[in-house]
This record gives sequence, structure tokens and C-alpha cells, in this order.
Amino acid sequence: MAESPHRAAGRRLQLPLLCLLLQGATAILFAVFVRYNHETDAALWHWGNHSNADNEFYFRYPSFQDVHVMVFVGFGFLMAFLQRYGFSSLGFTFLLAAFALQWSTLIQGFLHARHGGHICVGVESMINADFCAGAVLISFGAVLGKAGPAQLLLLALLETVLFGVNEFVLLSLLGVKDAGGSMTIHTFGAYFGLVLSRVLYRPQLEKSKHRQGSVYHSDLFAMIGTIFLWVFWPSFNSAPTTLGDGQHRTVLHTYYSLTASTLGTFALSALVGEHGRLDMVHIQNAVLAGGVVVGTAGEMMLTPFGALAAGFLAGSVSTLGYKFFTPILEAKFKVQDTCGVHNLHGMPGVLGALLGVLVAGLATHEAYGEGLDSVFPLIAAGQRTASSQAMHQLFGLLVTLMFASVGGGLGGILLRLPFLDSPPDSQCYEDQVYWEDNQMLVHS
Amino acid sequence: MAESPHRAAGRRLQLPLLCLLLQGATAILFAVFVRYNHETDAALWHWGNHSNADNEFYFRYPSFQDVHVMVFVGFGFLMAFLQRYGFSSLGFTFLLAAFALQWSTLIQGFLHARHGGHICVGVESMINADFCAGAVLISFGAVLGKAGPAQLLLLALLETVLFGVNEFVLLSLLGVKDAGGSMTIHTFGAYFGLVLSRVLYRPQLEKSKHRQGSVYHSDLFAMIGTIFLWVFWPSFNSAPTTLGDGQHRTVLHTYYSLTASTLGTFALSALVGEHGRLDMVHIQNAVLAGGVVVGTAGEMMLTPFGALAAGFLAGSVSTLGYKFFTPILEAKFKVQDTCGVHNLHGMPGVLGALLGVLVAGLATHEAYGEGLDSVFPLIAAGQRTASSQAMHQLFGLLVTLMFASVGGGLGGILLRLPFLDSPPDSQCYEDQVYWEDNQMLVHS
Amino acid sequence: MAESPHRAAGRRLQLPLLCLLLQGATAILFAVFVRYNHETDAALWHWGNHSNADNEFYFRYPSFQDVHVMVFVGFGFLMAFLQRYGFSSLGFTFLLAAFALQWSTLIQGFLHARHGGHICVGVESMINADFCAGAVLISFGAVLGKAGPAQLLLLALLETVLFGVNEFVLLSLLGVKDAGGSMTIHTFGAYFGLVLSRVLYRPQLEKSKHRQGSVYHSDLFAMIGTIFLWVFWPSFNSAPTTLGDGQHRTVLHTYYSLTASTLGTFALSALVGEHGRLDMVHIQNAVLAGGVVVGTAGEMMLTPFGALAAGFLAGSVSTLGYKFFTPILEAKFKVQDTCGVHNLHGMPGVLGALLGVLVAGLATHEAYGEGLDSVFPLIAAGQRTASSQAMHQLFGLLVTLMFASVGGGLGGILLRLPFLDSPPDSQCYEDQVYWEDNQMLVHS
Repeated sequence: MAESPHRAAGRRLQLPLLCLLLQGATAILFAVFVRYNHETDAALWHWGNHSNADNEFYFRYPSFQDVHVMVFVGFGFLMAFLQRYGFSSLGFTFLLAAFALQWSTLIQGFLHARHGGHICVGVESMINADFCAGAVLISFGAVLGKAGPAQLLLLALLETVLFGVNEFVLLSLLGVKDAGGSMTIHTFGAYFGLVLSRVLYRPQLEKSKHRQGSVYHSDLFAMIGTIFLWVFWPSFNSAPTTLGDGQHRTVLHTYYSLTASTLGTFALSALVGEHGRLDMVHIQNAVLAGGVVVGTAGEMMLTPFGALAAGFLAGSVSTLGYKFFTPILEAKFKVQDTCGVHNLHGMPGVLGALLGVLVAGLATHEAYGEGLDSVFPLIAAGQRTASSQAMHQLFGLLVTLMFASVGGGLGGILLRLPFLDSPPDSQCYEDQVYWEDNQMLVHS
Repeated sequence: MAESPHRAAGRRLQLPLLCLLLQGATAILFAVFVRYNHETDAALWHWGNHSNADNEFYFRYPSFQDVHVMVFVGFGFLMAFLQRYGFSSLGFTFLLAAFALQWSTLIQGFLHARHGGHICVGVESMINADFCAGAVLISFGAVLGKAGPAQLLLLALLETVLFGVNEFVLLSLLGVKDAGGSMTIHTFGAYFGLVLSRVLYRPQLEKSKHRQGSVYHSDLFAMIGTIFLWVFWPSFNSAPTTLGDGQHRTVLHTYYSLTASTLGTFALSALVGEHGRLDMVHIQNAVLAGGVVVGTAGEMMLTPFGALAAGFLAGSVSTLGYKFFTPILEAKFKVQDTCGVHNLHGMPGVLGALLGVLVAGLATHEAYGEGLDSVFPLIAAGQRTASSQAMHQLFGLLVTLMFASVGGGLGGILLRLPFLDSPPDSQCYEDQVYWEDNQMLVHS
Repeated sequence: MAESPHRAAGRRLQLPLLCLLLQGATAILFAVFVRYNHETDAALWHWGNHSNADNEFYFRYPSFQDVHVMVFVGFGFLMAFLQRYGFSSLGFTFLLAAFALQWSTLIQGFLHARHGGHICVGVESMINADFCAGAVLISFGAVLGKAGPAQLLLLALLETVLFGVNEFVLLSLLGVKDAGGSMTIHTFGAYFGLVLSRVLYRPQLEKSKHRQGSVYHSDLFAMIGTIFLWVFWPSFNSAPTTLGDGQHRTVLHTYYSLTASTLGTFALSALVGEHGRLDMVHIQNAVLAGGVVVGTAGEMMLTPFGALAAGFLAGSVSTLGYKFFTPILEAKFKVQDTCGVHNLHGMPGVLGALLGVLVAGLATHEAYGEGLDSVFPLIAAGQRTASSQAMHQLFGLLVTLMFASVGGGLGGILLRLPFLDSPPDSQCYEDQVYWEDNQMLVHS
């Protein structure tokens, strides 16, 4: 409202030009590099004389759709808890994720799937692109309300590259297993966002404090996000695993882990709450930690009991994080973590990586039988022992933390570029800065 | 707000300790008894040299996910119609259902699926666990706003056991067909809840009357629940049926039955409404009766016309129930049925059971051909006539009503235990009793 | 509120009687004509000795469910943006779509799928019925808030017939390809609604202007509709295509097209917005234009780049339409288009049809290989050249515009019948006319 004409004019051009520039660039790169894979190309598919039932589409599309709902409905509404930032939470989620899907198709394609110089796309590349968008949105959660859309698009541009490189190092160079992305998505996205938030630290942010909380109905909107994330998380972790028992087992673990993180969250939330009351922030977030924590080990022979134990631990740690660690993070470490991504994605992601180290280290030929080749091909081929695989998993976590920190730092420097339009401390968490206010007259 | 310190301290410990105790107990039982089945175990699956496409996962997982959405999104938001009880409706749905998924895995596993003393889990056991959670949430609907979370958890503990036993008696001992659970889920859950509500009758409940209704936006939130339940109900009824034509036919019947219950609901709601106006309560609930009423007969050769007729009847009866029978139920029978589960699940469930009696009694070898073996294996094997199957179906309904009534009575006695924290009459339907009120300051 | 007793009495009978009459008629027609197809009939399916995995159900049901969500959740909530018309938007969507599903099963069945005088139903006919419901809801969007439920039901009665005839002419007589319905659904539904709105022009509509806009939380509810439409649109376009590469490729195109229309929408919305601000109306609607524009060409070899280009164009055109063309449409052409269906379905639908002309005209045996037979069977059989197919596609667009205009005109005449209850100019966009107001006391 109390904005200078110069700032408004700057924004008027920044966002449209950046959108046009980025869309133009990805379109050209698509024209040059992106091609159908053998399952989406009419000639290639029919040349092979396949049965239609063999098309990868039928094995992965239902899971893909669930993941797609999680990225756009789940993350979008979960971040709509802020009382005056619902339009931006939902809108910028849309913008960032849509761009990330295109851009990560290119980045991941260049790194992983080059066939004769081309990037070949199908349902698997779509799942991977959605995963990258998920990581970008996790980082977005750490700076929610404190950065404008043009800044966020540049951030997505940078983070998608680093996400792709990190994932390539882990999965292709180190031979690390991480189907559901405890490391590549959650740990990476969270620490990228936290370092970013540290670099962008705003000492005067209490000027916007009155807008930082939720109101009754914004919390109900956020629950739309929570519940769809919770319900579809089994599809998230299992979408890219090996077919058959791999997908089936991952779904089972995630399902049970989430039930246990839910019970852990309610237990701890009531235990630490004033007069034993529950805190809606915990319910909205920490119940999901059970999905994060089995992102690495979900494909392995974790056992149903293992899933329950891991989920309970993650839900409890996450709840305690919201209660006790978030204030310390701001006061001592100068990290203003709007959505508490450290509690939902950071700590449970690291726990999930460590759980992967443990379960990989316990892998035996007896437990996996002929299935060892699907889950741990390098162990099955005799190129690695289980202990060696565990060490590689642990090293993958360190690599991820390194890439995330460097990336978050670079992102912070990028967003502090003076010509980029950043909301003033008194205008954070406020839709009116970015949205025509005709819709807001009645309610506000 | 006007709460004694003693009560608050009691709750402070009750809920956390109960969560921890129950989670600890199920975790130990999982460790001892629960194992992968041959489709989730790496060694067992690969030993069999199956094609991955044969894994049951690909036949049932999309339906399972829809059921999962119905349980958590559908039931959760449908109950969020209360103006000041949205947090509790969504939150306690989460808590109860999460616990019921674990606990019913064990109960149903002990009764049904014991292999060498072990409970073997996969997508089918997950569907069955979700079904039990559905029944628990139906009962929850009858006492919504009148019981605290610790009470509700104990209720789920009891109801899950009785649900499992009733289902076992019907499906395994009596050879009754009830894929979509008109009897085992809807009739059982509704009458369990109604008897429970009778035992917990509160003569002074009008003290909370001003909070018992909805407001404009809480009704819109409830419609999220309604629509997802309506849309996914075909998956609910078909999730556990025989593969191939069985699932396909069940989906078809449910789809058409729901369209007819919707038209019936609109017709009757406008007919009985003041000045011909529609009542949102009817639309939110009675449109769903078409899904309930084909829960038993949906797998049978009901015919598309039969689905329309049954759906129309169920939607009409349900609407009339909300208008005329709910007040009588409270005034004459002292049953305070918050969500009207008698109208949505009780009467349509009984109708559905009777429809199953009728359609089973009409089964012929001509109509089912070789498919008779899938739908009515005992008739196909010559062990029963169609009339005998119909009699068994009817007996199954009586057994269900008996188990539900006894269970609801036991549940009522359990919840009246004096040390269990029950909200006073003046604090029913009120989130502030259970939730930190920082989020409620602005709106209330 | 200030309603004459006569009007109220008229409505009291109109809606219930019409519902009962229509339901009775379709039920009788179902009894006479509708039968199981060979995949839903127990005897026919088992007679064939098929593998259950071959049942069409497993290839199309996940996509069908997504389409079903789009029709009821997507369209319903998208239209709930009006501040005082949320009950009607959601409720009438339910009523119209439920009736359309039954009625279009009959109409499309009579035209397409008659086997021995019978209509045989299964998942494919369910998808087609949902598509017809989608077209009816698009037309509903053009007159949203200005017609009562009995009027709308009669409209659905008429439109379903014309939809079926138009689709039959295009797909069966002209051999036009239009899997995702750029022509048959979007262009048809939009221009039907626009002509209808022209005939029903209300010069005094500004009397209800204060209710025509949204408020903050009604815009958030609308975003539920937007996001589910956006996320599931790939399933919409691919649900009825040929199996295998056809479905897979269509999903891929729709996915990328939507990302580009999202970037285009944000770019143009900020460019034309006051002070560079974004307009929530654009985000709610124009981001979806990318799904509409590839409804015809999505099955063809459009290339991923082609999808991006088409999506970007559609999103941009749609945004500019909301900003500049909607006011002209009302001022100059006397078309009051409540939801802006011209911008979301009309222009992008025509663009999509033209894109189909272009891509069909470029079809070669080299590009499609043996798959040419699936996508363009008439070209593969040598009965048509690619240019001839392109001309037929173009002619299909003209036929669609003709049927839509005639249908909308007839619909307008029908709705102006004096005994039909139409809301007065001062009561448009107002739930209280149709809904018991007990729920509205607190909020309004």
C-alpha cells in the first residue's frame, strides 16, 4: 500500500520479463534436446511389438498422479496457514513448481538420461521432475513470506541445478539408494532453505509479527495440504522404486510409519502443550515426519515394526523441534524458518538417511534373496559389502548437506542482489504487496 | 477456559500416556507377529519368478489410495461442519484412524490371515485396516463434540476388536458376501455409535446448542469431505472384491447408485424444505447414501437399473431421516446423533443388507455363468442354494446389529469411567477445550 | 427474502417434480436398454476365459477417477469463488452433473454403443458420461448465479442431447480426432453457454453487482478447484485415448502444456496488472488453458516443445481475455459471462482445435510408424491424406460451433419460459434464494 512508484515499476517488469525469459529459454532447449522416449513415441513403441500392458505408464502413472497432488495441493495448502498470505502461498507454489518441472526435466535429462545427445521423457522423468519441485518448495517454506516471486524464480533456477547435480552424485556416482528422497529431497531442500534463510536474516522482522500467525480458517485450509500429503505419501516414496515387491513394500512401510508419527505427534504435542492442549502447528506438520523418515529405507527390508519405530521417533522429534528448537534457531542461529522445515524435513530427513545407513548395513542375501539385485545391485554383484554400502549411504548424506549449504549460501547472495525486489520488513507475510486487492476489501 | 486445574492436569497426562501405551503395545505386537506377505517380501516375491505385473499391488493400489483419501479427507472434512469444532473433527479423525490402522492390522490379522503364527501384510490388509478405521469414524460421528480424544482412543481400541470379530463371523464363518461393507462397516459403525450415544445421553446438552450448528464457510469445508467421499465411493465398494469383472461391475453400480441418491436427495430436500429451499445438511450427507446401499449387492448382478433404484431409495430415505427422524431420535429415544449417522449409514446400511439378501436370493447359474464361483463360491460349489445364501445374508445383518449394540453399550460404559476426561455439557462442540487457542484469537 | 408466496410455492414444486420426473424417466430407460458390457458382466467375462489383467478396468479406471474428481471437485470449487453463492455453485454442480451422467449414458449409448438394441456400459462409457457432464458445467459457468436449479436441469437435458449428437457427428461420421475434447467439450460447452447467456441478457444486473465478486476465503476455496483441475488434467486428456503410447504421450503433452500456460499466465497477469500486481482471477482460470489447448492434439505427435509453445500461447491469450475481452463481451456483445468461460474454454478450445488441424496436417508415416493406425486409422488405411484429415478436423470445429450456437439459443428460449422460476436481477449470485438460511445467520 505505502509503496514507492519506483518499486512498483520495478516489479511490474521484473516478474513478467523473468517469466518470459525463462519460458523462452526452456522452450528453446526443449526444441533442441527433448524427445519422446520409447514408451511415448508412436513409432518406437509400435516398432517393438510390445503389449500395451507393458508400458511403464500403467505401473507408475497412478503413483505419479498422487505425487503431483502432493506437490501442488499438498505443499500449496500446507503453506496457506498464514492469515494474509494464502494467495501468495498457493500462487507462488504454482509458479515455482511449474517452472521447476520444465527446468529440472532439462537439468536431470542432461545429467541422467542422454540418449544420442537427447533427453528422452516419459512418466519416470515426470516423477523425477516433480521430486525436484518438491525440494524447491521445501526451501520456499523456509523463506515463505519474505521473498518476492521474481526472487523465488531465480532461486528455483539455481536450486534445480544443484538438486540435479547432488542427486546425480548420490545415485549415479556413489551408488546410494534414496528412492523417496530422505537425502536428495528433504535434507537437501531443508538445509538449502535454512542456509538461505540465515543469509537473508531480517533482524526487524517483528514488524510483521502480527501477520505471521494463522487464524482459525487458515488453519483449516492448511489441513487440506496436510491430509493430502499424509494420504499420498506412500505413493511418493514408492513412485520411483523397482517394480513389484519394491513398490509394494515401500508403500507398506510408509503407511505404517505415518500412523506411528501421527500417534507420536499427538502424544508429544499434548505432553508439552499448555494445560495438555494440542497445537495445530504440530498436527499440520509433524504427523508427516513418518513419510520423510522412511524415504531412504522404505525400499529396503525395514520390516513393519521398523517402520513403526522410525515413524514414532520422527513424529516425536519433529514435534519437539517445533516446540523447543524453532525459537532457538531464530534467537541463537538467526534462522527464521517460517514453515519449520527444519522440523518437518531437516531432522526427519537426516534421521531417514541414518536409518538407510543402518538398514543397508544389515542387508543379507538371506533377507533379500533374489531380490537383492533390485534393491542393492552392487552388493548382489559382489562389488560391495553391506558395510560398504552403508558407508556410501552415510557419505551421501554428507555430500547432500554440503551441496545444500553451498547452494543455500549462493541462493542468499543471489537474492540479496539490490535490483531484486524484496518486501520490506513491515510488508512480509502480506498478500497485498503482490495481488490486486479487489478481493481483499470485504474480509480485511 | 473455565476449567479446573485438576481436569487440565488429568488431560495433560491422559492423552499422551494413552498414545504412548497404545503405540508401544502395537509396536511390540508388530515386532512379534507381523511379517511381509509373499508380495511385499523381497526374497519370497523373487523366489516365485513372478512377473511384476502380477503383483496384487497393481490391481488394488489405486483403489486403496482412493479409500485412504475417503477415510482421512472425506470423513475428516465432512465432520468439520461444526463452526467451532473443525480442529477436533480433523485432528481426532487423524488420531483415531491412525491408531485403528495399526490395531486392526493386528486384530484382523489374528482372526483372518495367520500363516505359521504370523500376520502377513500387503495391500489387501491395508484396505481392510482402512475399512475398520471407516467404521470407527462412523461411530465417532454419532458422539462428535461430546467425547475427548483419550475417550475416543479407548473407544477405537474396543470397536476395532468387535469390528474384526463381527467381520470374521460374517465373512469367514457364515460365508456372507459384503465387499463394500453395508453390514460390516456402515450398519455396524452406525448402530455402535447410536447405542453409544444413547448410553452417553446428556439431558443438558442445549447448553452447547449455539455451537452445534454450522456457519457458511464451515459448510463449505464440509463439502470437501462430501465430494471426495462421493467421487471415490466406487473405489471403496470395489477395493476388496474379486478382480476383473467383479471390481469393474461394483464400480459401475456404485457410480450410478450415487447419481440417483443425489437426485433423490435434491428432490426430497426441496420438497420438505421451507419455501422449497434446499438444506445443506441433506446435500452434504444424503447424496452419499447411494454408496452405502450398494455396499453388499454391488459385486452381484444387481443390474444398472437396480443400482439406480436402490440409490434413489437410499437418498430419499436418508433425506427424510434428517428432516423427520433425527428430532424424534433425540426426543423419544434419547439418542443425540451429532452427524446423523443413522440417516447416512444406519438406515442405508440396513437397506443395503436387505438388497443383498434380495439379489443373492435371485442368483442363478444363467446370470453369473462361470463367474458364479467368484461371487458366490458356496452356491457354485453346490453347498448352498441361492435362497440359503439369502438367509445367511439376512442372518449376517442380525449378527451385525447384535455385535454393534453390545459393542456400543460396552463402549458407553467404558467412556463413563469417572477418571476419563469428558467435556462438560457447556463445553461440547468446542475446540478450545483441546487446542491451544493462539490460532483462535482473531476469528472468535 | 422479499419473495412472493406464489414464486416460493412454484419453486417448491418445480425442482422436486422435475428431479422425480427425470429420475423416473432415466430409470425406466435404463431398465429397458442398459446392460453390462462384456467386461462388467459375470457370465460374459468368464466365458471368454480372459486374464483379469486384460480387463479394460485396469487400464482406464485410475484416469477415470481423476476425471471424476475434476468434474465434481474441480468444477464445483472453481465456481465457489462467488462470496455468497458457494452452496449453489457446489450444490448445483452436483445436481447437474449427477443427472448428466445418467442421461448422457443413454444419449451416447443410443448413438454410439448399441449392441442388439442395448446400451452396454463399463468404464469407457463412464468416462464419456463424465465428459458430457464437464461440457454441461462449462455452460453452467457462463450463467452462474443467474438461473435456478430447475432451469439448469432442463438445460442439462437439452445440452446432453446436443453434446451427444455433435460428438457423434465429429468422431463417428467425420472421423475427427478429439480425445481430450478441445472441440467436443470445451468449445462446445463454452459457446453453448455464451449464446445462452446472450439470450438471457439482463440489462439491470448491476443490481447484484455487490455480490458478484469474491472475498478472500472464497478465492481460497476456488483454488481447491483450480489445483485439482490442473493436477488431474493429464488424466482428462488421456482417459479415452488408445492404450499404451497414446495415453502415455497425451499425459506428457498435457503436463508440459500446463506448466507453460502457468508461466504465461503469471507473466501476462503481472504485466497488465495495476502496479504489476497479479490478479487471482487469472491464476484461478488461465493457468488451466494449457490443458484445454492440447485436448485435440495431445494424442498426436505434438512434441514436448509443441506442448510448451501451445500452453504458453493459451495461458497468455486466456489472461488477456480476462483483462480486456470480458468487459467488451458484456458491453458490446451483451454476454454476461460469470466465470469467464470464453477465456478459459472458448478461445483455448478453438486454439486447440486449430492446433489439431495443424498437427494432423503434418502427420507422416515416418513420425508415427506402425502407431499411425492407432492415432489416424483413416490415414493409415489409405482412405485419407494428412491434409484431408486436417480439413476434416477444421470442419469439425465449424460443426461444433454451429451445434453449440443453435443449442445455446434453444436453451435460452427454454429458460425464458415464463413458468420457470428465474431469480430476479436483485437476487442473482445469492444462496439465500435456494438454501435454508439457518447456516447463513452467523456469517452474513
